[in-house]
Amino acid sequence: MKLPGSVKIREVGPRDGFQSLKRLLPVAEKVEIIEALIAAGVPEVEATSFASVKALPQFQDAEQVLTRVSGKNTLLSAMVFNEKGARRALSAGAGRLVTVVSATDAHSRANMKCGIDAALKNLDAIFQAARQYHAPVTGAVAVAFGCPFQGDVPETEVFRVVRALVSKGADAVILADTVGTAVPNLVEKRVNAFRERFFETELILHFHNNRGTAMANLFAALLSGATVFDTALGGLGGCPYVPRAAGNIPTEDAVYMLEEMGVETGIDLEALIAAARRLESIVGHPLPGQVMKSGPRMLGLRL
Amino acid sequence: MKLPGSVKIREVGPRDGFQSLKRLLPVAEKVEIIEALIAAGVPEVEATSFASVKALPQFQDAEQVLTRVSGKNTLLSAMVFNEKGARRALSAGAGRLVTVVSATDAHSRANMKCGIDAALKNLDAIFQAARQYHAPVTGAVAVAFGCPFQGDVPETEVFRVVRALVSKGADAVILADTVGTAVPNLVEKRVNAFRERFFETELILHFHNNRGTAMANLFAALLSGATVFDTALGGLGGCPYVPRAAGNIPTEDAVYMLEEMGVETGIDLEALIAAARRLESIVGHPLPGQVMKSGPRMLGLRL
Repeated sequence: MKLPGSVKIREVGPRDGFQSLKRLLPVAEKVEIIEALIAAGVPEVEATSFASVKALPQFQDAEQVLTRVSGKNTLLSAMVFNEKGARRALSAGAGRLVTVVSATDAHSRANMKCGIDAALKNLDAIFQAARQYHAPVTGAVAVAFGCPFQGDVPETEVFRVVRALVSKGADAVILADTVGTAVPNLVEKRVNAFRERFFETELILHFHNNRGTAMANLFAALLSGATVFDTALGGLGGCPYVPRAAGNIPTEDAVYMLEEMGVETGIDLEALIAAARRLESIVGHPLPGQVMKSGPRMLGLRL
Repeated sequence: MKLPGSVKIREVGPRDGFQSLKRLLPVAEKVEIIEALIAAGVPEVEATSFASVKALPQFQDAEQVLTRVSGKNTLLSAMVFNEKGARRALSAGAGRLVTVVSATDAHSRANMKCGIDAALKNLDAIFQAARQYHAPVTGAVAVAFGCPFQGDVPETEVFRVVRALVSKGADAVILADTVGTAVPNLVEKRVNAFRERFFETELILHFHNNRGTAMANLFAALLSGATVFDTALGGLGGCPYVPRAAGNIPTEDAVYMLEEMGVETGIDLEALIAAARRLESIVGHPLPGQVMKSGPRMLGLRL
């Protein structure tokens, strides 16, 4: 088994996790969680989303959150969907913009109200704004492993979108299993194909756990040479209306598995567990994370 | 990626899952679940435990459950701890006995009230009884990937117990991650070492999900050539006092992942999901299984 010496964890809980909550969280609690993540040594936090307040009222405080947090050694990124959002994010100090395009027309039309080509064209203004601030833009490809409308998504369709993002200047590409249908051998194929075609572009994997396969997918990606993963503190995410339906990989579970395998994350697991427990008390319902319940190992093992 | 064409799933929910419940289930509901598993095509069900009623009152109906269920193409096995339990199980029609020894003295003393050597000696009467019925005995090695008292468990300690079980006549050996600390590269090492040393003995892997790694461990074991896995319907199991702390791998999540990768299980996933939902309504609290909530794939994908 060939494992990398280290990986990079991108914490997406403050964006993908908070997005899933019905209740609006106070700015102070969001800031507290992000600062706890920074203190734990997480190298990047996707801190908020500059979506329309009508669509995602949870992020009406996007500027406040970004300006109140200091990154130190942590890159603070923000999700954006148009030029206005990009300029707001950059003014508020976002170090990296993340934007999204679907791999299928059907999902793009349902999610972005336009087809893939129009969605890609809309990104030009985002890339242009980012260049003025010398900030990188990362492109996420939604439904890159399966689509709720189309079903299987052929590799060629995924890589057509990746190629467009790279040609626009994306520094990194996120392949997202938006609906959580991916399984390890599909992950291996996607990662290998990506690394062959776009060896100069950073690849980030974003797995949802809707069918219990997310950690196996992360491990399969790792075996195939991927070294950057999106995870969310406590596993926050997913649909708030489905009880116990999981969204993201719990950051602390990923860090436990990686560090136990000798793969360094640079993250303090105990601090992460404390942050996950605090997050659970803030959101007011149990989170899917397991290590936060069982502890990093059994009592007394780390003497 | 080299995957086997098919694997065998051993359903342990009616034993390892029901064992975790505080409330005693009626015999009829246990029988209903076991029959649903049989109808779904599960090749083996660990149907009950012949433990002392004082220690595990949940299994005071062990005979009734076993005699009321008809296996058809499904092997019905039972967990036993001594000669009396073995004879009760065999008389009630158990097709296979499963018994347990710890890989560490500390866990053995806490769990079985005696050290490993005494525990192994106690098994002789079980093997003898089984021989009279021409029934196979499978030996489970508890804490084979880590121990709550000792910490890491050296390979030599694990295989000393495996060797003793094989020499007594065990047809198969279960390596159990009792406390859920295993990670994929340790699993690969254990599976490879087992297959080198005991290539004539069936190897079964039993993973607990206390730290979110169980599906990744199953996948790692699969890559290393393992083809028999213990799972539990809905993911039932674990400690009933820790909310949402997961025990076993949900059978339907494992079947989803395996079948989507092209690895046959011979199990009807839709029937399994229906059984998991019924089990959830019987136990009266949400189960950790994800596929039972999200569906096998998104609506309309399987046209």
